[in-house]
Amino acid sequence: MEFDLALALPLLERAPATLRTLLAGLPAEWTDATEGPETWSAFDVVGHLIQGERTDWIPRARIILERGRSTPFPPFDRFAQFRDSEGKTLAELLDEFERLRAESLATLTGWRLTDAQLSLEGEHPRLGAVTLRQLLATWTAHDVSHLAQIARVMAKQYREAVGPWRAFLPIMDR
Amino acid sequence: MEFDLALALPLLERAPATLRTLLAGLPAEWTDATEGPETWSAFDVVGHLIQGERTDWIPRARIILERGRSTPFPPFDRFAQFRDSEGKTLAELLDEFERLRAESLATLTGWRLTDAQLSLEGEHPRLGAVTLRQLLATWTAHDVSHLAQIARVMAKQYREAVGPWRAFLPIMDR
Repeated sequence: MEFDLALALPLLERAPATLRTLLAGLPAEWTDATEGPETWSAFDVVGHLIQGERTDWIPRARIILERGRSTPFPPFDRFAQFRDSEGKTLAELLDEFERLRAESLATLTGWRLTDAQLSLEGEHPRLGAVTLRQLLATWTAHDVSHLAQIARVMAKQYREAVGPWRAFLPIMDR
Repeated sequence: MEFDLALALPLLERAPATLRTLLAGLPAEWTDATEGPETWSAFDVVGHLIQGERTDWIPRARIILERGRSTPFPPFDRFAQFRDSEGKTLAELLDEFERLRAESLATLTGWRLTDAQLSLEGEHPRLGAVTLRQLLATWTAHDVSHLAQIARVMAKQYREAVGPWRAFLPIMDR
């Protein structure tokens, strides 16, 4: 499927509400659970999505639009949430993500991007030349990829509890 | 994590609302998309969850409570949704799932299950002896496993569109 901003927007828009519906008020046994050492909980993932709004998607889109490949993107800190989420509740993070995502999408739609602009290139510090279109497709896929991760982390908490059904649940051993 | 009905219930309860928030009104390009031949779309998955409410979870729990291992569970038809969802809209399926899940959980909580009852056994046609506790843990894990599937199917639609970022998105090639 080719990237189409009109199709990507409805998915980008509903990410905060989807996470809120899934996570708000859920016992911490689910939202703090991980897949083991050095892996992330739902709480960690929401913090990571907040970092994306702050430092990744729109800031990088702006670099592409204003400076093209002349200014490489600053590297994205995949671990900043462990510092920034500290002391916050999941409810606070869900609110923050909702607010930031709404701001991001207001900026994005305000640009009224043309096909030519979507083809503009930026310089990724590790991947090299990338287009604005690829950046926005990645933003969209990144959301649902982390939704899949959160759901998988929860499923795995019952890896033992499901007993023999584990054989029918490949997600348990992924 | 051991199965705890008080922790499983909040997750079971929110499944219909989570799917509605994610899927209702989303363009069909997302909700009808699959991972390729013989794989399921979000539309198919919601139909499958409906079948689970109708013929799997509560009906099997009832067999365990009333007849123990003397009556093996009828096999679950993993493809019934392709017949039963035909001609329906995704909005109709989401409504149906919400209604059926509410009924299922009213039945479940009405039973006021004791620890001893949760340890009762049933006879799975392929897996042999399973406990009611394992059945209920599987129900809970099955929900989030399919939520992960729906999110993965959507992410994969942008497998090409993300360009070089595919290297950072392992979900694309899962």
